[in-house]
Amino acid sequence: MSKETERSGYHHGRLREALVEQARALVEERGIEQLSLREVARRAGVSRAAPYHHFANKQAMVAAVAEAGFRELYASMRAGPETASEFDRLEWCGRAYIGFAMANPTVYRLMFGSKVGNLHEHPALVDAADCAFGELVTRLVAAVPGEPDPTARAMAVWGAVHGMASLLIDNLGPHDATAEGHTQRWIDASIALVEHGLKSG
Amino acid sequence: MSKETERSGYHHGRLREALVEQARALVEERGIEQLSLREVARRAGVSRAAPYHHFANKQAMVAAVAEAGFRELYASMRAGPETASEFDRLEWCGRAYIGFAMANPTVYRLMFGSKVGNLHEHPALVDAADCAFGELVTRLVAAVPGEPDPTARAMAVWGAVHGMASLLIDNLGPHDATAEGHTQRWIDASIALVEHGLKSG
Repeated sequence: MSKETERSGYHHGRLREALVEQARALVEERGIEQLSLREVARRAGVSRAAPYHHFANKQAMVAAVAEAGFRELYASMRAGPETASEFDRLEWCGRAYIGFAMANPTVYRLMFGSKVGNLHEHPALVDAADCAFGELVTRLVAAVPGEPDPTARAMAVWGAVHGMASLLIDNLGPHDATAEGHTQRWIDASIALVEHGLKSG
Repeated sequence: MSKETERSGYHHGRLREALVEQARALVEERGIEQLSLREVARRAGVSRAAPYHHFANKQAMVAAVAEAGFRELYASMRAGPETASEFDRLEWCGRAYIGFAMANPTVYRLMFGSKVGNLHEHPALVDAADCAFGELVTRLVAAVPGEPDPTARAMAVWGAVHGMASLLIDNLGPHDATAEGHTQRWIDASIALVEHGLKSG
């Protein structure tokens, strides 16, 4: 155990996790511009130097928040009832995806934005994103057996849910797009388009 | 004619247009953070005060760049061959949409980002975006007559092309997503998914 870990009372892995949680809360509260390792340390009740044992800089911390977001997204995509039909599980996966984005707009934007810089400098983030994408491919292959190019198909499906999620969280679309009832209508239309496309393609 | 217009040699409307062009070039070159009305004025060869006859502030100038982007997108969506079938024209519209985003990633991000602040403060921008969305609805209704909820359907189609465009310009997807040949494969898959969805829905 490092001196810092002893002092803060955090187990090493747990401190990292606590810092990521604080970073996420700070970004959601004040925006990414206001994120600083110093403020995160203050909120976690550790020394200014402590975050640097886990994150080289602010960008690495942002990447960790995005990574945690992808892991949460992955978990929510997998949380559907296992007894459902493969097609219903795929639908669940798509709705969970859009639901995650709408429940966590700030983190979602960060996951798909350019704030983390060069992705290749953050292999754990790339892994987490691949994991979520892989879940979509798995569900797709199970629902539409014999698909000749499942990766391209999964990209198309991903594009459809990512696009709908983005339009909704950015409050775009016709003026009343986010009015009560409309949001669900857009989501249903999006899911129906994809399902019909997969079934007839 | 104002004194400024006389001095710069620009006709009033043409000066505004020139400022928007310079602002767009500056954003594409250096990013939105580096955009300043002063630098735009310098590049257009007019006084520092000149841009303020057309734009209240930087945000208004960004909104004008986004508005011009939507007008250009609208034009490209309409540029398909008029002799083609309605379904082919809709496909053209979708491909033109993704093509516009890929050819103008910076402007596209700006059109869909939060950099313009409250949309309702920029009615001309809202008009231009509605115009592009309206074109999609028009093409959709022509291609799929009797569609019970064309707006929701158009939102779903818009989501699909917007999402694919975003994944591509942000270089997301499986590691090799933007490698030669893959890009076209993703776009084709996206267009095919939407078409099959519309035909069978």
